[in-house]
Order: sequence, then structure tokens, then C-alpha cells
Amino acid sequence: MAENQPLPVAIIGASGYGGIQLVRLLLEHPCVKIVYVGGSGSVGQNFADLYPHIAHRLNLTIENLEPEQVAERAKVVFLSLPNGLAAQWAPRLLAKGCKVLDLSADYRFRDLSIYESWYKSPPRPDREINAKAVYGLPELYGAQIANADLVACPGCYPTASLLALLPLLKQGLIDPSGIVIDAKSGTSGGGRKGEINLLLAEAGNSVSAYGIANHRHTPEIEQICSEVAGQPVVVQFTPHLIPMVRGILATVYAKMRDPGLVSDDLLTIYKVFYRHAPWVKVMPKGVYPQTKWAVGTNLCYLGLQVDQRTGRVVVVSVIDNLMKGQASQAVQCLNIMMGWDETLGLPQLTFYP
Amino acid sequence: MAENQPLPVAIIGASGYGGIQLVRLLLEHPCVKIVYVGGSGSVGQNFADLYPHIAHRLNLTIENLEPEQVAERAKVVFLSLPNGLAAQWAPRLLAKGCKVLDLSADYRFRDLSIYESWYKSPPRPDREINAKAVYGLPELYGAQIANADLVACPGCYPTASLLALLPLLKQGLIDPSGIVIDAKSGTSGGGRKGEINLLLAEAGNSVSAYGIANHRHTPEIEQICSEVAGQPVVVQFTPHLIPMVRGILATVYAKMRDPGLVSDDLLTIYKVFYRHAPWVKVMPKGVYPQTKWAVGTNLCYLGLQVDQRTGRVVVVSVIDNLMKGQASQAVQCLNIMMGWDETLGLPQLTFYP
Amino acid sequence: MAENQPLPVAIIGASGYGGIQLVRLLLEHPCVKIVYVGGSGSVGQNFADLYPHIAHRLNLTIENLEPEQVAERAKVVFLSLPNGLAAQWAPRLLAKGCKVLDLSADYRFRDLSIYESWYKSPPRPDREINAKAVYGLPELYGAQIANADLVACPGCYPTASLLALLPLLKQGLIDPSGIVIDAKSGTSGGGRKGEINLLLAEAGNSVSAYGIANHRHTPEIEQICSEVAGQPVVVQFTPHLIPMVRGILATVYAKMRDPGLVSDDLLTIYKVFYRHAPWVKVMPKGVYPQTKWAVGTNLCYLGLQVDQRTGRVVVVSVIDNLMKGQASQAVQCLNIMMGWDETLGLPQLTFYP
Amino acid sequence: MAENQPLPVAIIGASGYGGIQLVRLLLEHPCVKIVYVGGSGSVGQNFADLYPHIAHRLNLTIENLEPEQVAERAKVVFLSLPNGLAAQWAPRLLAKGCKVLDLSADYRFRDLSIYESWYKSPPRPDREINAKAVYGLPELYGAQIANADLVACPGCYPTASLLALLPLLKQGLIDPSGIVIDAKSGTSGGGRKGEINLLLAEAGNSVSAYGIANHRHTPEIEQICSEVAGQPVVVQFTPHLIPMVRGILATVYAKMRDPGLVSDDLLTIYKVFYRHAPWVKVMPKGVYPQTKWAVGTNLCYLGLQVDQRTGRVVVVSVIDNLMKGQASQAVQCLNIMMGWDETLGLPQLTFYP
Repeated sequence: MAENQPLPVAIIGASGYGGIQLVRLLLEHPCVKIVYVGGSGSVGQNFADLYPHIAHRLNLTIENLEPEQVAERAKVVFLSLPNGLAAQWAPRLLAKGCKVLDLSADYRFRDLSIYESWYKSPPRPDREINAKAVYGLPELYGAQIANADLVACPGCYPTASLLALLPLLKQGLIDPSGIVIDAKSGTSGGGRKGEINLLLAEAGNSVSAYGIANHRHTPEIEQICSEVAGQPVVVQFTPHLIPMVRGILATVYAKMRDPGLVSDDLLTIYKVFYRHAPWVKVMPKGVYPQTKWAVGTNLCYLGLQVDQRTGRVVVVSVIDNLMKGQASQAVQCLNIMMGWDETLGLPQLTFYP
Repeated sequence: MAENQPLPVAIIGASGYGGIQLVRLLLEHPCVKIVYVGGSGSVGQNFADLYPHIAHRLNLTIENLEPEQVAERAKVVFLSLPNGLAAQWAPRLLAKGCKVLDLSADYRFRDLSIYESWYKSPPRPDREINAKAVYGLPELYGAQIANADLVACPGCYPTASLLALLPLLKQGLIDPSGIVIDAKSGTSGGGRKGEINLLLAEAGNSVSAYGIANHRHTPEIEQICSEVAGQPVVVQFTPHLIPMVRGILATVYAKMRDPGLVSDDLLTIYKVFYRHAPWVKVMPKGVYPQTKWAVGTNLCYLGLQVDQRTGRVVVVSVIDNLMKGQASQAVQCLNIMMGWDETLGLPQLTFYP
Repeated sequence: MAENQPLPVAIIGASGYGGIQLVRLLLEHPCVKIVYVGGSGSVGQNFADLYPHIAHRLNLTIENLEPEQVAERAKVVFLSLPNGLAAQWAPRLLAKGCKVLDLSADYRFRDLSIYESWYKSPPRPDREINAKAVYGLPELYGAQIANADLVACPGCYPTASLLALLPLLKQGLIDPSGIVIDAKSGTSGGGRKGEINLLLAEAGNSVSAYGIANHRHTPEIEQICSEVAGQPVVVQFTPHLIPMVRGILATVYAKMRDPGLVSDDLLTIYKVFYRHAPWVKVMPKGVYPQTKWAVGTNLCYLGLQVDQRTGRVVVVSVIDNLMKGQASQAVQCLNIMMGWDETLGLPQLTFYP
Repeated sequence: MAENQPLPVAIIGASGYGGIQLVRLLLEHPCVKIVYVGGSGSVGQNFADLYPHIAHRLNLTIENLEPEQVAERAKVVFLSLPNGLAAQWAPRLLAKGCKVLDLSADYRFRDLSIYESWYKSPPRPDREINAKAVYGLPELYGAQIANADLVACPGCYPTASLLALLPLLKQGLIDPSGIVIDAKSGTSGGGRKGEINLLLAEAGNSVSAYGIANHRHTPEIEQICSEVAGQPVVVQFTPHLIPMVRGILATVYAKMRDPGLVSDDLLTIYKVFYRHAPWVKVMPKGVYPQTKWAVGTNLCYLGLQVDQRTGRVVVVSVIDNLMKGQASQAVQCLNIMMGWDETLGLPQLTFYP
């Protein structure tokens, strides 16, 4: 399965939570070798100065090289940077023959004007490159990812939401105008930043909503939903901050077109839809997943219930926001890009509880 | 304001979380005196054996008397019992001239067949008494509560949900068929019971949904919504278990009838609706409450946002599930029943954070 | 008890966690009126912009006046400032006739060289004023506080630790060279600052030690212990960060001088020692307090056990770090300074759980 | 490294937290195969009915066979039973030629009278078998474990405490009479039992001490310490319940014999002591581990500080209580018993944060 020589990979923006997940995953991946960790604020430090628990497994200094220099060392580059920066890195890396997996939002939108509007970005010059980017949701775009040089890894909320919605939209089972997504995330989704609202003293033992009606993951969800449904889909998306470290639970509500379908019917449809998806698990009737099932894995667990009284289906989707919602999904994409098994090197079971 | 003699009150079922809240509240209420604490499993124990932190303020033994005996000591009785038991207590207490505040579901339904169906109860013989019960949501039924002998205190989820919905339904601003209520509760809502799923090891650092499409608070919410709207209202209600001790946040979604209304319009309507409600606070535009604002108080904080893209309004409502969602709302009702100020003896500000 | 006119008080540094506690406490205090809230970073904002939940109870703009101007409005000033700043404020306020309660470390040390050394401070010019400061632990220095113009409110860890140790040291029951204090604090003790290690993502679901052998509360504890014991006392003090918002639990270990004393003996001694202390509660044998008993109150709960095998006593002391450990203890001191009952306006029972 | 045929293993008492860890670990171990999961309360259920998240990896029914029948299927048996039951199972399994790893306390004491006294057990008939048991702390007894048929896996607190103390005791660096161990554990240490004090509502957002002066892990720690020190060692051990799911942090205090030794000296000694121990990591000076570093791994992280003022050393030791403190340490022992590398199949890095 693996080549003789491990694949040299680089991580740009390795100091954040996405970066440390990538480091952890790639260190234990049987076919790759981390050859470069890049940062800006912590240049010159050993990576283990930031994360002392990892010192016995990694001895690399954080550097701040130009993309072309990185490309001399690595064949694959993960970009784990704030929005707007990947668009500066990717073209130069691609020009040097690197494959690029971008964890930011920069290449997630086929129509860059949506990006520019929701992300308040100046006009982007890299339209040609953007056109070649593939949205890195393997359960939907596996074939395109296999041939991609530039993968735009999905956001955490879109991953959880889309995996809940895809079978319904693909089969035309729901009214596309009535979708409500109520999502709950651990605070690690806010990043390793010293922000007041992410303090344990503030976010601990409490729950709150934010970004109502204007969260940037909304158009990302709508773009993929619309493509799958074959018609414009508008969703109501509300994220919430939950007093836990990791995990996303998305509760998705949709109006059924056929009031005669029951939970068992939909569960069958879901199981068929995901029969070749090793990372999506559809739970038996009456079983709803909790986020901790997915923590530390690349798994998405789905549970659902049809409410005959209301004519709606309620789908519950859980992932680890930093894994299937970010870093391990990127590695899943890497596996596909390299022709490896898509489960290679990825953890398959959490340590419960 | 207070009478010369404190009002003697009894608490039946004092050992649970509802009971300890009532004890705490009534101990510091300027016009009442706790004269009896009743229980079954802990009869003969001092109340402070169950809750040692309270020993310096309360010295009462838990007893297990007949209702008539309780009525000899107390003029007002709070029933904090599992569903089904209040219906055995209330008639006998009322017959002896006591006022009764019931924290269970027994008297919340005008149509007892709904209760019998959702609560899997045998036919109830106390239809006449049930007909006299008043639903104890003071912001809606204050006048009736003032004259009631039997108050059915609302459930925690219904309180948070209804306070979010009342102005919309009263004014006919929303489509009553499209309401979705996604609610999040701390685990104290499950009671002081040794259940696996409520363990910190299980519920900690995780979030999960439960009772999808069949939670018993659904018909309670629908009954009041329908009455206010003047037409049948069906709601989609989904509760979630949040890794926190106390608090409920309800995120309420509804389709606006008039697409021209903006957030400022609705905020004005809400402020007018609640202008005489000392316990409901409508937040300024763009401010959404978090549950810890309400913890330890009888307050409900509301925030809202109209989403022009989707034509929906999203309302966020937070309460303390054991206070406004249970015990302090009962005391608010007591205040009204006794002709006292409805804020009497109730905490008005949390200790943040 | 109260005067006819409420006492005008000012809070300098009102935006932090100490400040918001003071605001909350003083708003509900029957004999005072907040006339000024001072800050630096948030000047010109309404206090409710920082803490929206309080908007319905307080309408004050944060100002940044000179001490003399503050003294024209207020008769009592609470200083809730970073270490080093109170020493600039207090002399000017005292000169204008204000009474001052300082929540920082500036006036806690009778020997300023200890302060200068442990706090890495330049030499302090205010030795005369420092000499007049009284250490604001009412259970020990109540008489002096009653006559003080300047009270140095104790640190959170010293309060919990000293209340555990005082009876033992006063009676000469323990070997003063063998004291170990292992303390555990909620993260609010770190303040309302955007620091990485205080993020929920970092401090949540985890525990860690910090400041081993060099925490600044060490000499503060030792100063009072030495004074009480009548001989130099050196303590081993280690604080830990606990994944909770509020509360301190100090586990205190000491070697008994008389191996014949048993737990009941010590409990009797503790109860006698604290018989006039309304805010310290000694628990029955075998009952150890948990921090949430004290949250939101000015209480300290103590439990203890003599270990005959080892010849040691283990004392467990819990307080709310922001209350008895900070703000409410300051109000307790104010009560004493003003000749009011020391329980006036202070919460006496938590809302459990 | 691995044999051609996977080793058939059984887990008795698989439904608890120890059991689910073993299942998770052994499922991913390259050289073993789970052939039997035993339970009593859940006989006949599929294991995935208890832990639905594992359904895609394990399809085994919980059985309740006699030891001899289990021995026909498995060559190695893990006993994860309440104290007292392993003593009934082990003799019968050993008689059939199985190797046994016991996670309970039954075989941890060389002197059974200590067990009988602290565990309030009737006299044990299996003294001969007990004499053959090896205490499963590989960092100390690796050679004996390699030849053992019966391994008594250490308790969680003893593991964390002993790894902190061994270098000090072995080298005679500390006064053996002055050891204080203040330990903090996540609530999963209490097991998957519906106990009130382990509820999130009770244990959440709070900290408490328990078992002061009488916790059963005390004599277990003392037994090993005494053996290593070559003289009787008595320790003061106090456990605390921390509002987190997993992890133990032990803060260990000891009086140095040589006041001239500094932190660097001790760090060198620790590194040498553990130079062949792949699962113990000694941190650099000034770095103290937090529990989440170890979660989901078999690692123990150690940090220490010499306090010149007090003449003590303070050692901080963290482990995952269910892993190095229980299940993964058992697998480490299995590796050694089978002649495999002791790191085989065990996770080496957590997913931070």
C-alpha cells in the first residue's frame, strides 16, 4: 500500500489547533513524513515548546520560508492559515508542482463573489486556480479529489451539516426551502486565540448562540446543497457555543415531501447512500449519537427520526470539529489523492467516555 | 407588603432539585415560613443530611404525613413530586382549604386526554379539579393566577419556549405551522437520580439530542401556543443535553408572515409585550443571551434576529431551568396569589461569571 | 441598622471579575449606593456594554477621573486594580477622607520588602500609609478593621488557607514546619483576560499545577500564620487550575503535636474558635465540603480529619474565590468598618447544585 | 514481531469503563483477537447495545460462561470485575493454563491480611496463588511480569503516585516519613455506576475531597514504596474528584534529605531512572504536565520542582486513569508477558486539546 519512501509533507500554520491535529495525525501515518512546520509568530521555536506533550515524537523547528523553498522539501503542503492567506500560498506551491490541501475558506467557493461578499475580501486575482480547486468532502467528491492538485477542505459546520443532508437532497425527499440547521460546537472551534468569550470562565457551564443569520458557513452549506439538489437551496443556520472542548452536533430539520415515509425508510436510504463511505455510520432507529463518540476520530455518526405529526425529518449528525471537521478529513483527502486507502493512518474508534 | 405573621408553607418532595430550590428561595422570602418538608425515601432524616451546606439555615426533619395533616400546618403547599402523584395530593389539600402549587405535569393540560396519552396515564378521576387549575405562566395568565387555588407550574422547556413565542403568536406575526424549537438544557433537568446518561463521565464534554419527536413538553407548548394564536399550532421540539449544571437555551425558528419586518420592529413589539413583565428582559439588537446570565435568578433573557434572506425570525431565550423553569416561577406565582409584588423575595441578578 | 442616606461608594477597576462581583453585591446592599464605576480601557462605555445581563439594574458610564474627583462623590472606594496601582490611588483617596478597600496585594504586607521581593516591585514610597493598613480577614482582625481607613483585602488562596489553619496555629496544635497547602481554583481566578491557558479548550476537561514553590500568595499566608503562631511559619503552597468557573478548595496538611487528639477534639476546637464567625461553617465529622456549596456566597465551609496512622490532620476549606476570596469579603469588611452587621447585604446560601 | 495467529483473549466484566477501554485497545492491537466478552447484568445483549459507537468494529454477544469454558476459547483473560470476584476466577483460569491479568485489587497485596483489613474481606483461601501474582507496574517489575501467569494490575492512583516517587525512594533522596500525595481524578474513576455524587449536576463545576485518611489505594502505595525504599513507608494520601471525565494528576510532596540538591539534579536522576521506560516522560525544568496530555494514551508525564525555601521536592505526575491507570497498562503488561515490544498496539500521543 505504501511506497518505499515516505511522502514528504509540510504544514504551514502548524501552531494552531488545526496544525497540532495534522502533526499528530501525520506523525502516525504510515506513508508520510513531516519535513517542515511553518509559522509566523513562533519562528525559531521548537514545535515542542508550543506543545510539550509531543516532544518525544517530534523534533522540528518552526520556520518561515517562502513557498518555493517549502516546495523544495515537500511534495504535499497543508495550509492551516487564517482566511485570505492560502490564496497567496497556493498558486506559488502549485507552480512548483506541490499538491495543496487548504484548511481555510479560500478555495471553497466556486463563485468567488460569494467568498468576497461573505468574507469581506477584496477581489481575488486567482480565479483560474480557484476554478481547479475541488471541495474536499470525500463522501461526495471522492473521484474529483483523486485527481485534484488543490483541495479546499470543508468547514467544520458544513461537514456535519452536509453529511446529514446529502441523502435527502440527492433523492429529492425534502422541501429545499425549509431546512433549519441548529449546530452546537465545542470551543476549540474558535481556535487557539486569547479571546474573552472563549475563556473557560465565560464559556464554561453555559451555552450561547452566535452568528445568527450571518455565519460564514451558511453560503458554503448552500453551495453544496444547491449543487446536489439541482436547484437553489437556502438554509437557516445557527451555531452555538457549547461548554466542551471538541465536537460538533448538528440538528437538521427538513420538511418531508412524501408524508408516508417513516424512519425505517429513511434509514435504509441513508445506509445505501453511505454504503461505500467508511467514515459515516448510520445508527439504528431510536439511537442518536453524542459528540464524544466521534472525538479523536474521522467518523461522522448519523441518527434520524421522522416526525409523523409535523411531517418533518430530524437528523442528528456528530463529528469531531478538529478531525472530520478539519484535519483528519484533510488526511482522508490526501489518502485519496495519493491513491491510498481512504482509511489509512486515521483513528477509527474513540476512547469512550 | 408582608403580613405580620409569615405564611406557613409546606414542600412535598423536598429532596430533589426542585425541592432544594424551593427551600432555598422560601428560606429567604420575607413573608413565608417553611413549616414542613415532606419526602418518602428519606423520612426521619434531617433535611441537612441530604444537603449539608444548608444546615446553618434550616433544621427540619423530613416527614411523610397525610395531606390532611400537612394542611393543618400549612396554608400553601408546593408539590414537587414525580408525575402522577400530585393528582393524589391536590384534591385532598384543596378540600382542606390549602392553596396548591404543583411543579409536576399533572395539572398542566386543560384536556386531560392529552395528558393521559403523552404521559401514558390511566384515566384521571379529578377532571373537575383539573378544570380549576391555572397554568402558572405569570406573563400570560397573571390575572387568573391571582385568583387561583391550584396552579400548575409550567415545565422548564415550555417556559423558555413560550416566552420566546408569545409576542409573535399574539400579534399573528408568524406562520404557526413552521415553528421549530431547538432547546438545550443543563443536566440538572434530569433530576437528582442516579442515571448513567446523567453521569459527568457520560454527559461531560459532550452534547446529545434526546426525545426527538416525542418529548412530553411538546403538547404543553402546543396547548398554550394554540390558545394564544387562536388556532391549532404544532411545533417541532427537540431537547438536547448540554455539559453544564443549570440553564436552558431555546433557539426558536419561525417563518415571518410579513417579510418587511426587520429586527428593530420585532424588538419594539417584544419590549411592548413585556413592558409590565419584570422578569423578562429583551436584549438590544445583536445581543444574544447566554444561559449563565440567568442562573440563580427568576429572569428570562430574550434576543432575536430577523433573517431577511430566509424570511425567518430566530429568537433565543434563556432561563435557569430550576428557577424560572421550575421553582422560582412557582414562587412568582405564589407572590401573585397572595397579592404580593411578583418580584418579592426572588433573586434578580446572577453572579457572573 | 442602615442610615437614612445610602453610603456613596465608588469602584475603581470595575470591568474585571472582582469589579462585577462588587457591582452585583453593592447593588443589592441595603445601605450603599454605587455612584462611580472607574476603568481605563473601557472609558465612556456604559457598564452594561461589558455585562449586558445587568442592564436593567445599573445605568452608569465608566469614567476615568482622578482620585480627588472620585473622592468628591464617594465616601468609600473599592480598588480592584492590578497589583501596583492601588499604591498610587490609596494615598490620594485617604488624604481626601475616603475609606479605602483594596483588593490587590499592595497593602497586604506589613514588611514591604517582602512585597517588593515577591512582586518584583520597585521600592515603595508609601511606607507610612502601608503601616496603617489592616489585613482584611474579619475572622482574625475584626476589631482592627472596625477602626481602619485602609483595608487590604486578602488574596483568594490565603483566605481559604488561613481559615483552615488559624485554629490549629492559635492553639499551638501543629508543627509549624510541616504545613502543606494543596489548593485548587476555578479559572475565574485568572481574571477576565484573554490568555491561552485560561481558554476552555485548554483548561477544560483537564487539571494542572502552576506556580510551584513560587506563587505570590505564599508569603501572604506565611505572614499571617507566623503572626498567629508567634513564630516563623514556612508553608509549602501549590495552586492548581481546575476545569470549573468559580471556587477554591484548599487541602491543608499539618503534623499534629499531640498524637492523642482525634477528629472530634479538633472539630470542637474549630467550632469554638469560629463560634462568633457567621461566615465560617464547620462540618460534622466525616463530611467534607465541595466548592459549589460556597459559590455565590460569602461562606467558608471547613471539614477535617485526623489521620491516626500518620499523625497528621487534613483540613478541607472551600470558598468562592471571587466572593469570600475577593469581593464579598471586602463588603464584609465594609460592614464592619461602618459599624453594620457583618452579614448585611451578603448572600448566605448558594443555589445548589 | 507478531505471531502468525492472533492471540485469543477474553474480557470478563467488559461492560464497565475498564472493559470498554480494553475492547478498544485490543481491537486495534496487531497481535490479539477478542474472542469473548463476559458480563452478568447484560448477558445476551450485543456489546454494541451498550456502546453503540463501536458497532462497526465489534460484533460479539455478552456471555456468562464458567471460567473453564472461557479457558477453552482464550489463552489470555482480562478480569475487569469488582473487588473480590477475581479471586474466584483466577484460580480456575490458571488451572486451565490461561494467563490472567486482573484489574481489580484482589492480587495486589503480598500480605493478604492488609487486603482483608482495608477491603473488609473475609479470609482469602487463595494464598498460594496470591503468592505467585506479580504487581503489574512494568517500570518496576518488568522482568517478573515477563515470567508471570497472573498479573495484578495497579490501581490508578498508585500508578500515578508511584511513578512520581520511585526515583526518589530508590536513591534514598527523601525522608520516607514525610510523603504527602494529593491526587485529583476525573469522575470516570468512579465507574459506570448511577451514583448521585458522580452526576454531572453534582460533580460538575465543583471540586471535592473524599476518602481522607482511609482510601484503599493507600496501603497499595505504601507496599511498593516500602519495598523500593527498603524500609516501612507511610504516606498521606488524599484523592479529589475533579469536574473532568478522565485523567489523574498526583501532586507529591516529600522532604529532601540533601538540601543541596536542586531541580536540575533531580531531573537528571529521573531521566536516568526512566531511560528505558518508553511510557514515562520527564519534562524540562519549569514545565508541569496537565492531565489532558496523557488522555487516550499509556503515557505518564512527570514534572518536578525543588523548593529550596522548604527543603521539599514537589513532583507532578499525570496519567489517563483508565489507560496507564488501568486498561492500557494491562495491555503493556500483556506485551511484556508475550515477549512483544511493550509499546505494541498502544497509543502514544493524545489529540490535543
